[in-house]
Amino acid sequence: MLKTPTIVLNVKTYSEATGVHALEIAKIMDVISTETGVSMAIAVQATDITLCAKAVHIPIYAQHIDPIKPGSSTGWTLPEAVKAAGATGTLINHSEHRLKLADIDVCLTKAKELGIEAIICTNNIATSKAVAALAPQFLAVEPPELIGGDISVTTADPDIVSGTVQAVKTINKNVKVLCGAGVKNGKDVAMALELGADGVLLASGVVKAKDKMMVLRDLADGI
Amino acid sequence: MLKTPTIVLNVKTYSEATGVHALEIAKIMDVISTETGVSMAIAVQATDITLCAKAVHIPIYAQHIDPIKPGSSTGWTLPEAVKAAGATGTLINHSEHRLKLADIDVCLTKAKELGIEAIICTNNIATSKAVAALAPQFLAVEPPELIGGDISVTTADPDIVSGTVQAVKTINKNVKVLCGAGVKNGKDVAMALELGADGVLLASGVVKAKDKMMVLRDLADGI
Amino acid sequence: MLKTPTIVLNVKTYSEATGVHALEIAKIMDVISTETGVSMAIAVQATDITLCAKAVHIPIYAQHIDPIKPGSSTGWTLPEAVKAAGATGTLINHSEHRLKLADIDVCLTKAKELGIEAIICTNNIATSKAVAALAPQFLAVEPPELIGGDISVTTADPDIVSGTVQAVKTINKNVKVLCGAGVKNGKDVAMALELGADGVLLASGVVKAKDKMMVLRDLADGI
Amino acid sequence: MLKTPTIVLNVKTYSEATGVHALEIAKIMDVISTETGVSMAIAVQATDITLCAKAVHIPIYAQHIDPIKPGSSTGWTLPEAVKAAGATGTLINHSEHRLKLADIDVCLTKAKELGIEAIICTNNIATSKAVAALAPQFLAVEPPELIGGDISVTTADPDIVSGTVQAVKTINKNVKVLCGAGVKNGKDVAMALELGADGVLLASGVVKAKDKMMVLRDLADGI
Repeated sequence: MLKTPTIVLNVKTYSEATGVHALEIAKIMDVISTETGVSMAIAVQATDITLCAKAVHIPIYAQHIDPIKPGSSTGWTLPEAVKAAGATGTLINHSEHRLKLADIDVCLTKAKELGIEAIICTNNIATSKAVAALAPQFLAVEPPELIGGDISVTTADPDIVSGTVQAVKTINKNVKVLCGAGVKNGKDVAMALELGADGVLLASGVVKAKDKMMVLRDLADGI
Repeated sequence: MLKTPTIVLNVKTYSEATGVHALEIAKIMDVISTETGVSMAIAVQATDITLCAKAVHIPIYAQHIDPIKPGSSTGWTLPEAVKAAGATGTLINHSEHRLKLADIDVCLTKAKELGIEAIICTNNIATSKAVAALAPQFLAVEPPELIGGDISVTTADPDIVSGTVQAVKTINKNVKVLCGAGVKNGKDVAMALELGADGVLLASGVVKAKDKMMVLRDLADGI
Repeated sequence: MLKTPTIVLNVKTYSEATGVHALEIAKIMDVISTETGVSMAIAVQATDITLCAKAVHIPIYAQHIDPIKPGSSTGWTLPEAVKAAGATGTLINHSEHRLKLADIDVCLTKAKELGIEAIICTNNIATSKAVAALAPQFLAVEPPELIGGDISVTTADPDIVSGTVQAVKTINKNVKVLCGAGVKNGKDVAMALELGADGVLLASGVVKAKDKMMVLRDLADGI
Repeated sequence: MLKTPTIVLNVKTYSEATGVHALEIAKIMDVISTETGVSMAIAVQATDITLCAKAVHIPIYAQHIDPIKPGSSTGWTLPEAVKAAGATGTLINHSEHRLKLADIDVCLTKAKELGIEAIICTNNIATSKAVAALAPQFLAVEPPELIGGDISVTTADPDIVSGTVQAVKTINKNVKVLCGAGVKNGKDVAMALELGADGVLLASGVVKAKDKMMVLRDLADGI
């Protein structure tokens, strides 16, 4: 399982992280993770899983799986397919790709069957408790209004981080909690850990940075 | 552009066509297309585009693209990403992945900008006329009740094929018409061409066959 | 709040329960509820709330609300609108109208603000626990494969009823649990209460019955 | 059929147009339509159709119908139900409630069967042509970026109005074209007719106005 504390990078569908650019970022993370010993994972587009999984040692995550079985589901993301492509984990229910509750349950159950780890995203303490009741390995709480913004959730709303950690533990002590939204530097990461989180989930802070290596090194310093 | 008459295989999310199995089928099609000179294309899962595009000469199609721009669309299928992975075309609005009308327009416009061909799927004559008005390179009419069945659309409902061809031509003469649903052998293909179609779109007839090479050779014979 | 034990009838979009026919059923329930003292509620289509709410004393529920605010949401179901029409409660996340987890949370929060009761539907023990963590007044567990069928959930899968009751209580003791799917007669209702449920949610067993009064009387006898 | 030229008001889910407030606006329109002889219709929330249909003579439209049949579709909007409640027409595919192409076809076909008129909304010339191929009684073109704004489509983008009228006529001469987005006064209405439209579809310009009667009278003057 993804070692904690950890830094998980979701590269979304940014141009700066599509195709060979996704691979470049994965390689930088691979280098820094090896150098520093800090646990890191990267969630890439479905089209880029094969490319990245062959080239690096850090875990490759899918950004999403659909609640489907093998068969007649043209154009949907088959859990078995992301595994075959080399993903060892997946985001589920990201704020940009919300799922129905019953489908979160189906996706998580399928991921467990396949031996793929799941990070289920949530938006507040109430939905974090609900997700904790489903017993995923990880959940990542991200207040939607702070995603892509300039202020880290750890500064803008530290109570949601500590509150989520506490609330989740009352439901299921085995669920690890990441936090995200606006996370950009090592200080934010350190703050997240202080608030009780097991790591961070971030995106634009790295993907949009000119010097990605420097930003990733700084993030690693926070752990 | 995809030469017509043509045989387009949509491998959907079948286990028999995921990962290396998608590659195997693509290679068989590549051999038969070269041998026979018959135009063929294969639509694979997003995770398998890179793998297949590097290995074969026949066109690789995506099964779907989402109406999104590069950026914050975690887990959706970016048109630019399927192109970067090596796809030269895409299905749009497959019966298992229907889109809103406005989104079909967005996807087609984006595909044209990127130089990716589009096969827009439809379910009857009325929606075929509507799609023809959007001026795609191809549309593929497939009556949903016959998809995955044992009787080819060309036998079960030949009028929908000839009717669609006629209706589409009244709207836009440049739109080529494929037909699908239940297509399984060379006779079905020949019938499709007789009815005025420019080719066929099929799936289970090949993917579920034990001897895929034999089936594909038979299909090619129909042209 | 809806008194328990209770019988909640969801008339869905059946022809036999649209417009004046919804009103007829509501009136029958009103009579039987008054006669027997058994708590009953009816969930009608949005178009029929006004009609029914003016004519009967039993609680009128909406079948669904959308996670929207007053404003620009053409054609969606505004929570404020179902309240204005006379609904005192609403189903949320019915198996035929599943919602995203974050939207269930929004709908429930809004319903509480407006003083409307909520029955959140679930499909198994895992999702029931998740919903219990959101603290609704009621949840109704209905295994999808048994909905509309001939065998009551209380007979076909009694463990899901007792298991849900137990699991929900470990999360939040204040959440009342209904069960549904295939419930048709008083014996099924009595069994539901024995298994720990606070009532039943049913549909076709009443709506499709020729003699609705007789069926409803029999159901009331089960309590 | 709705007489043209016409003014169609969509009151959306505004607080100012929910429940009794929808009724008040319908009554004002009824008065002005009678006084001036100008054709007017109002599209209200599903919950408010019964209330308004009983009280006024102008046509009541639904804001949306779902592509469903009578039966098991909890919480969706049944075409038969909006008719039973008194609606004589319906919007379909409003920009705030887009439908899949195949579902627009299903809804329109069902509306025709039931004798309900349809106004299908579109967003540009391309989708207007596509919709015209489905042969509805009306379509209403509304550039999404201008909806709810301060500048009327007739001023901001007159070419989309005249262009849509022309393009639609090449596909089907019987389809009447409304235009909308930012329409607020009689001058906008007059301009719409000059550009070839058969009327306007508007919302906030009336609903948000303090003196709705004055605004509606002014709009009527434009015809």
